[in-house]
Amino acid sequence: MAKTIITIGREYCTGGNYIAEDVANALGIKLYDKELITMAAKHSGLSEEAVAASEKRRTHSLLYSLYTMGNELPLGDQVFILQSRIIKQLAEEGPCVILGRCGDYVLRDRKDVLRVFIYAPVEWRRELAKTDPLVKAHDEKGIKEEIEKTDRNRAAYYNYYTQNRWGDAHNYDLAINAALGRETCVKMILDAVAAKEKTMAE
Amino acid sequence: MAKTIITIGREYCTGGNYIAEDVANALGIKLYDKELITMAAKHSGLSEEAVAASEKRRTHSLLYSLYTMGNELPLGDQVFILQSRIIKQLAEEGPCVILGRCGDYVLRDRKDVLRVFIYAPVEWRRELAKTDPLVKAHDEKGIKEEIEKTDRNRAAYYNYYTQNRWGDAHNYDLAINAALGRETCVKMILDAVAAKEKTMAE
Repeated sequence: MAKTIITIGREYCTGGNYIAEDVANALGIKLYDKELITMAAKHSGLSEEAVAASEKRRTHSLLYSLYTMGNELPLGDQVFILQSRIIKQLAEEGPCVILGRCGDYVLRDRKDVLRVFIYAPVEWRRELAKTDPLVKAHDEKGIKEEIEKTDRNRAAYYNYYTQNRWGDAHNYDLAINAALGRETCVKMILDAVAAKEKTMAE
Repeated sequence: MAKTIITIGREYCTGGNYIAEDVANALGIKLYDKELITMAAKHSGLSEEAVAASEKRRTHSLLYSLYTMGNELPLGDQVFILQSRIIKQLAEEGPCVILGRCGDYVLRDRKDVLRVFIYAPVEWRRELAKTDPLVKAHDEKGIKEEIEKTDRNRAAYYNYYTQNRWGDAHNYDLAINAALGRETCVKMILDAVAAKEKTMAE
């Protein structure tokens, strides 16, 4: 039984979600992804749609800041704080895989966390997008734009809330080019979990 | 017999040089490190000391630029071009491990290159520094300064010559936290080599 919490950040269309699933299954632990949004929504009393929308909004837009100045904290910040609390609580409960949501940053004070980042060259991701049922666009131009926009949003969200730089190797224990293959990525993460647990036990 | 060229970039005091040695030995291929300087020096007619000194100089110093404005190209740039040519030639000759020297960037047009970056938390590196015979400083303060200065120089050199960002995962196929252990790092690199060769063969 694994003792490690694994956080996985990933570029869009790298298959990072499938790798996360495989890792969770191999270790017999839970994977937390969009469920987090649902849980955050339930805890906050905000609607699920409002929470989901706040994530997609560019967090450093001036207009958005002006709009929310009347409240104590902008909606996006409230949601981030709520999700962070939930991530911390899940980590307290035991080993799990946390996909996205700045998990690496939120859990930065814990020693039992393996932080993974998955990326791939954009040409490779465009190929994968053609067969990924989660991708909305259907033509080359649409896929290109969907990838660019999603990455831009993820980077903006991460950089805003963590003050780190999304995709900078220094924030992770392991960063892998998904083009090496899904199986290889899973194997490496499992090897890293084993190595982490060995060094923790020493 | 490996068919892949492996470039390894690394922060100071991560043991990246020892990992590179182990990988080269495991695959039965050559490792190129400071030899590159020697070769570059021999090819250029510049003294070995001058070449080595040019690498340590901060490449974007205004004073240095003014000093070299009289020549066709600054000394540092000449050395970089020479070393790049040598790296390309070595890659042509066959599989090898290339440590540092922006190898990932120099060989960016080749498909048969696995690009690795090795980093570690600074506290972990300070501990390693105490037992690493290559480290010059002997007290805590000196070690801290030596690590900071060497990293600063490496980042400045890489960022100047490649226009990329040193340590950004996107520049590499694999970035590993050396704190996972030397053996794990070597194993992961060998796994990645095997995966790379498998996808190349498909």
